[in-house]
Amino acid sequence: MSSQHQTLRIGLFGFGVVGEGLYKVLQQTPSLKASIEKVCIKNATKPRNAPASLFTTDKNELLHNSNINVIVEVIDDADAAFQIVSAALRNGKAVVSASKKMLAEHLPEILALQQETGLPLLYEASACASIPVIRNLEEYYDNDLLQSIQAIVNGSTNYILTKMFAEKLSFKEALLQAQQLGFAESNPTLDIEGYDAVNKWTLLLNHAYGIVEHPNNLVFNGIQQINSYDASVAKERGVQIKLVAQAAKLNNGTIAAFVLPQWVATSHPLSFVQNEYNGVVIESSLADQQFFYGKGAGSFPTASAVLSDIAALRYQYRYEYKKLLQQTPARLGSDFHIRVYVRFNEASVIPKSDFAAIEEWHSGQQQQYLIGVIAFSKLQNSAWWKQPDVALIATTNPIVQDVALKNLQKKSLALAGVAVA
Amino acid sequence: MSSQHQTLRIGLFGFGVVGEGLYKVLQQTPSLKASIEKVCIKNATKPRNAPASLFTTDKNELLHNSNINVIVEVIDDADAAFQIVSAALRNGKAVVSASKKMLAEHLPEILALQQETGLPLLYEASACASIPVIRNLEEYYDNDLLQSIQAIVNGSTNYILTKMFAEKLSFKEALLQAQQLGFAESNPTLDIEGYDAVNKWTLLLNHAYGIVEHPNNLVFNGIQQINSYDASVAKERGVQIKLVAQAAKLNNGTIAAFVLPQWVATSHPLSFVQNEYNGVVIESSLADQQFFYGKGAGSFPTASAVLSDIAALRYQYRYEYKKLLQQTPARLGSDFHIRVYVRFNEASVIPKSDFAAIEEWHSGQQQQYLIGVIAFSKLQNSAWWKQPDVALIATTNPIVQDVALKNLQKKSLALAGVAVA
Repeated sequence: MSSQHQTLRIGLFGFGVVGEGLYKVLQQTPSLKASIEKVCIKNATKPRNAPASLFTTDKNELLHNSNINVIVEVIDDADAAFQIVSAALRNGKAVVSASKKMLAEHLPEILALQQETGLPLLYEASACASIPVIRNLEEYYDNDLLQSIQAIVNGSTNYILTKMFAEKLSFKEALLQAQQLGFAESNPTLDIEGYDAVNKWTLLLNHAYGIVEHPNNLVFNGIQQINSYDASVAKERGVQIKLVAQAAKLNNGTIAAFVLPQWVATSHPLSFVQNEYNGVVIESSLADQQFFYGKGAGSFPTASAVLSDIAALRYQYRYEYKKLLQQTPARLGSDFHIRVYVRFNEASVIPKSDFAAIEEWHSGQQQQYLIGVIAFSKLQNSAWWKQPDVALIATTNPIVQDVALKNLQKKSLALAGVAVA
Repeated sequence: MSSQHQTLRIGLFGFGVVGEGLYKVLQQTPSLKASIEKVCIKNATKPRNAPASLFTTDKNELLHNSNINVIVEVIDDADAAFQIVSAALRNGKAVVSASKKMLAEHLPEILALQQETGLPLLYEASACASIPVIRNLEEYYDNDLLQSIQAIVNGSTNYILTKMFAEKLSFKEALLQAQQLGFAESNPTLDIEGYDAVNKWTLLLNHAYGIVEHPNNLVFNGIQQINSYDASVAKERGVQIKLVAQAAKLNNGTIAAFVLPQWVATSHPLSFVQNEYNGVVIESSLADQQFFYGKGAGSFPTASAVLSDIAALRYQYRYEYKKLLQQTPARLGSDFHIRVYVRFNEASVIPKSDFAAIEEWHSGQQQQYLIGVIAFSKLQNSAWWKQPDVALIATTNPIVQDVALKNLQKKSLALAGVAVA
């Protein structure tokens, strides 16, 4: 890292809560030696809390402005963001972006563009906002010893689950409250159904293990199927339900990765993550469990992450994608089983023979559930568990391999000849 | 940051649990391109789990070996460590050290040596071991927005307090248990009386705020005075007692800093830090509260931090001490009051007139306590609160300034004419 400072002259795309927050903060932090030269906005007529001369609706006034050496992009439109980021890099400008969807869906192009142009693209704000997880995976967990990473990366869903659990609100009531407080979008599908989480997970998998995979190819779900009954079963068992993104090194060296609702024990650090917060647990062979916690969304935490990226550009910092480019990158694997709770209305929906072991089978008046172990590949290739009347929740320590699988199979009700359903 | 890799040929000082752990791990991580060339030990006759040819008792075989480009120092003797580190830097070698006491006591020389030689000295292992707090303060919280930092930096004392609190053990029983489990030294004074914590705090204050101060000049205490009565009062009030190192930006721009036992509310992230774990809470103007948690001591967590420093050296990483060298470094300030719980046997020991406000005064059969507010400078210049029969514990949010002080004064028993003692 060189100690020559670069004076940063910023072209900013977007002047919503994050963009305006950033503008104000930069005025208060002269030591950063960064100034906003021009701001590109969509709606020229909206009143803004900054001099009119700062604004333009013509993106080329930023992208082709030789006085600007950094483009900061905090807009909502993923397609437009990709155009801006690509053009900026090709025009010789460093880039800071917060668009997880764009970054996740265009990861190969984004990597190629950085290689090609030699210019930095930083995006700490795109995952867990204020928690410096990308930088730490990139710089600090830079060796072969990363065993697993588990994270709560979506604040809206965590808020809803917290309220369902702690205050016994229904899913709908909790969602409404989250929307009223601004923790969930008016169209909450991206959050609720896990799309936002899997986008972030695509990025973190890259910095954790060098994996390049399109979000569509990852196994994921949201919390749309979780109901009060699931919450009460969890409560009885002394666990919480969280939407957990996780990855772990399997015995064969490949990486298990998925985003699913999961039981979290009170002793697990993720149980500390309540309401709209995010948290990341990293396990390495040597350091055991480490936990990072902070606000994962919102204008100020996002602006904070963007600011730290801007600060890093002064020192010509760039991600080196060491695990991808300088080590043998890991591959995703599906040679493992997953231990799950499945709640359902009709037993006929459940492909019982797909389960390697069924440990518990509970029949109730309206709701039934089982706890069992299923090959991950069977989940990958089926859709029954995404149906509205079914909820699939990974248990604590859900990844089952080798001997552990054999032990669970010995206890299986089905194999023991106990009739289920 | 350059992308040229450096092949690291290491001279290792110390082959105790950390040194040996490191040796083993490096054999398992070929991607690091780092090899141990020679190990300097004190006792040549002790059997070692490594080829005899690796060992020497002559430090010059490492320090003057032109084939070695990195010195890693994990020995116990602070004076010897300083000699080794100084000689290594002067001989053109990069250095990784884990000796907090040495680093804290020699911080000005350590800074000068790095400036002079242009060589990196990394020491992530010296504070909170596996938690990458130095690197994050240095690289990520690199702006004017760091409001405060609070940390549990000593695992032994946290273990003892946890056991006193959760299992109602006496101080002595808890200490004995910590020693049996290897969380406390056979001579536990350095841990128990806060010396270890203040050494670590000296280093973190530098990376957080650019402050260079000798540990002796910081206000600190350990947990040696805390007893079961204090634990029960805390429990009644719904708080835990932790040894908390903290620093916060005061209204006048200077930095309040101290290491004292403190009440921690259950809602505060540090309350999650149990047993031998460490935790750091960072508050910035934008990102709100962030929390880092992990193992703070022990051979593997320490080896893990050393390993990450070694990995960073491949990329010529060095601390830039940006807050000290490239910004206006902050100064320590004492223009504030501190809200404390004080437990005592004899009221005559307490300089009541030194308190700006006394909110509560409890007289019991054997133990008495008050809750009050005292100028920090009065603590700096007195020793009554370090006496064996007195315990001073900072309350939650202990730093009191300006209006808040006036409000507390209005409620003061003494000022209201209520007789105390």
